[in-house]
Amino acid sequence: MSKVSTHMTMSLDGYIATADDAVDELFDWYMAGDNVVETANPDIGMRVDDVSATFLTELTGSVGALICGRHLFDVANGWGGTHPVGAPVVVVTHRPPDDAETAWPTTTFVHDVASAVERAKEIAGDRDVTIASPTIIQQALDLGLVDEVCVSLVPVLFGGGKSYFGALADGHVLLDDPDVVVGRRATHLRYRVAK
Amino acid sequence: MSKVSTHMTMSLDGYIATADDAVDELFDWYMAGDNVVETANPDIGMRVDDVSATFLTELTGSVGALICGRHLFDVANGWGGTHPVGAPVVVVTHRPPDDAETAWPTTTFVHDVASAVERAKEIAGDRDVTIASPTIIQQALDLGLVDEVCVSLVPVLFGGGKSYFGALADGHVLLDDPDVVVGRRATHLRYRVAK
Repeated sequence: MSKVSTHMTMSLDGYIATADDAVDELFDWYMAGDNVVETANPDIGMRVDDVSATFLTELTGSVGALICGRHLFDVANGWGGTHPVGAPVVVVTHRPPDDAETAWPTTTFVHDVASAVERAKEIAGDRDVTIASPTIIQQALDLGLVDEVCVSLVPVLFGGGKSYFGALADGHVLLDDPDVVVGRRATHLRYRVAK
Repeated sequence: MSKVSTHMTMSLDGYIATADDAVDELFDWYMAGDNVVETANPDIGMRVDDVSATFLTELTGSVGALICGRHLFDVANGWGGTHPVGAPVVVVTHRPPDDAETAWPTTTFVHDVASAVERAKEIAGDRDVTIASPTIIQQALDLGLVDEVCVSLVPVLFGGGKSYFGALADGHVLLDDPDVVVGRRATHLRYRVAK
């Protein structure tokens, strides 16, 4: 059955970037091995270790649509219209670009998180939806719309920056025990949200 | 060779307690199995799964001295004078109890973190030193006195509370890839601090 997942690369102390959006050591695992991971965007290459390659293939192979916030979309320059995962992107924003239809024909712009999840599920069909912006993930968790939380946990302490998870409106969110893949420069953790 | 480690049980989003010191779901793994773990304090019992039992035995078996802050010492009521690990405790505090020598003959009180590490190493001899209070851990990391960071990572999001790791005075702290033990209701991670 189609599910809604989150995935980000996070420092051991919970940060997905510095305060000014630098990822520093977080993405070292993308280049820590010999396995070339093919992506839909030839400008974005990865060379990861064996088990991380299997993890990435499983994680991205089932994705039918991605959701992100406007900030990530802008920082990544819309992935040039082709996200490396190769799935359509739904962007949550109150200010869609004026040239959205001509400049970003494969991208959908919606105004709120609930609409984004609904729209992404329609696009994905029986495939999965992945959310990849912390502010959107936090709102989706609050709305109870997340089925699975994935973390690529990197052996570094940042001491500050932008958090993967934020405050939670309804208290603690209990997760099931994770599937664990011990890769080079990242330990990959997949947790089902306990229902 | 004797090393200085840290160990705490942490939520996936980085918290070791709520703002008012409740551990809530964090210590579920202490009672999530059938293996009775013997401790030096008969009032504190644990029943953990097989791999967590092995992890705990390895973690605690080598400890020659513990360091904590005054807050943890008070919350735990000094473990009744006998820490479950069975090692002497060094407490960092600016206000040692007036009856320290008579009421707490096995506990050492010192004024700062550097002195605590020095004193704990003397007590531990060729055994290891473990630090178990977040504020002390944060200062010891800043002082470059930590060799190994251990985390029992629990599948729950707290959304707020007291953090394991704080701000870091000298920027990011790089760690080596971890040893990973996948237990029930906790994934145990041991990271060497990269030198």
